[in-house]
Amino acid sequence: MSTKFASESIERLVDEFVRLPGIGRKSAQRLALYILKVSRPEAQRFALAIMDVKDKVGYCSVCGNIAEAQRCSICADGRRETGVLCVVEQPSDIIAIERTGQYRGLYHVLLGAISPLDGIGPEELRIRELVKRANEEKLEEIIVATNPTAQGETTAVYISQLLKPSGVKVTRIARGLPVGSDIEYCDEQTLTKAFEGRKEI
Amino acid sequence: MSTKFASESIERLVDEFVRLPGIGRKSAQRLALYILKVSRPEAQRFALAIMDVKDKVGYCSVCGNIAEAQRCSICADGRRETGVLCVVEQPSDIIAIERTGQYRGLYHVLLGAISPLDGIGPEELRIRELVKRANEEKLEEIIVATNPTAQGETTAVYISQLLKPSGVKVTRIARGLPVGSDIEYCDEQTLTKAFEGRKEI
Repeated sequence: MSTKFASESIERLVDEFVRLPGIGRKSAQRLALYILKVSRPEAQRFALAIMDVKDKVGYCSVCGNIAEAQRCSICADGRRETGVLCVVEQPSDIIAIERTGQYRGLYHVLLGAISPLDGIGPEELRIRELVKRANEEKLEEIIVATNPTAQGETTAVYISQLLKPSGVKVTRIARGLPVGSDIEYCDEQTLTKAFEGRKEI
Repeated sequence: MSTKFASESIERLVDEFVRLPGIGRKSAQRLALYILKVSRPEAQRFALAIMDVKDKVGYCSVCGNIAEAQRCSICADGRRETGVLCVVEQPSDIIAIERTGQYRGLYHVLLGAISPLDGIGPEELRIRELVKRANEEKLEEIIVATNPTAQGETTAVYISQLLKPSGVKVTRIARGLPVGSDIEYCDEQTLTKAFEGRKEI
């Protein structure tokens, strides 16, 4: 397995692709050879797209969603219901929920879930910001839409207890979702059902 | 499926990743979010690796292998047997063959196989260059190691007939390889057996 391409540059690009999640060495070789075949402008557009994400994209100062400005497009949208907050683990979860077209409230992204084995405690997540919002914004309900995994459930229970003093109703989306799966990959119908069947915790 | 990330830059990077072979939209979203998470120097190293491949890497003027100079590292290696030529479809096939450690000759890369349905005729491949080498270099044998697919077999037969006038012995690697598979993914043992069992065509 040690034989390599007759090019340092190709090998370096293979190594870069291998670092990406879910890409093995064989796939990385294919991708590097693909880059070798595309035109220079095409490669440049790809390289620029990577740097643009680093240079222009950040996180919304209010909810933690992906944003190219101080506030994300959802927080900046005056037509959203401001009394409901949906708590998710990742920005990609927001895409899945928006896809149902059923939810009109705001979001709060934790950027992860409590996972002691991975060294992720409540301090590593945007939970302090959530408590602040629960106390300062006029909220009627906080829907906890963390993943239906051990970490997601732990996070949901932790948040519900932490938010008790705020007096805001905290709900959990229904476990219509298959346990152990990812919200990001859930189909619209199941996710809509989960939203409809939410229960107070 | 139309809901998007709240960022033009992320969407553009997702589109770029989707263009890569074997990457679907879901994977592309994961990869783009991964880029958002890595440090700026890491992203820059990735972007530079892409441009380096376009700027520094080309094809060997002799054999068509990947090269960062006029000639690839195999053609420039004085210790290789110069009397034997192995014809392959792609530079990645050379990696698989080199991995066996059994072959010490030179290579000739066609950069594809004859495939009329895809509009690829002999003129689109480096076959003219192969005939030139067969006539000008002192060769004892040309081993045709195109893939054991319909296109690869067609190419092998075409080449063997085209090379008849040169008087060089043309052999075909044994079909110990499972038909319809890819040389690139073949294990060392099967590939070694295929080399040992080659027959004149």
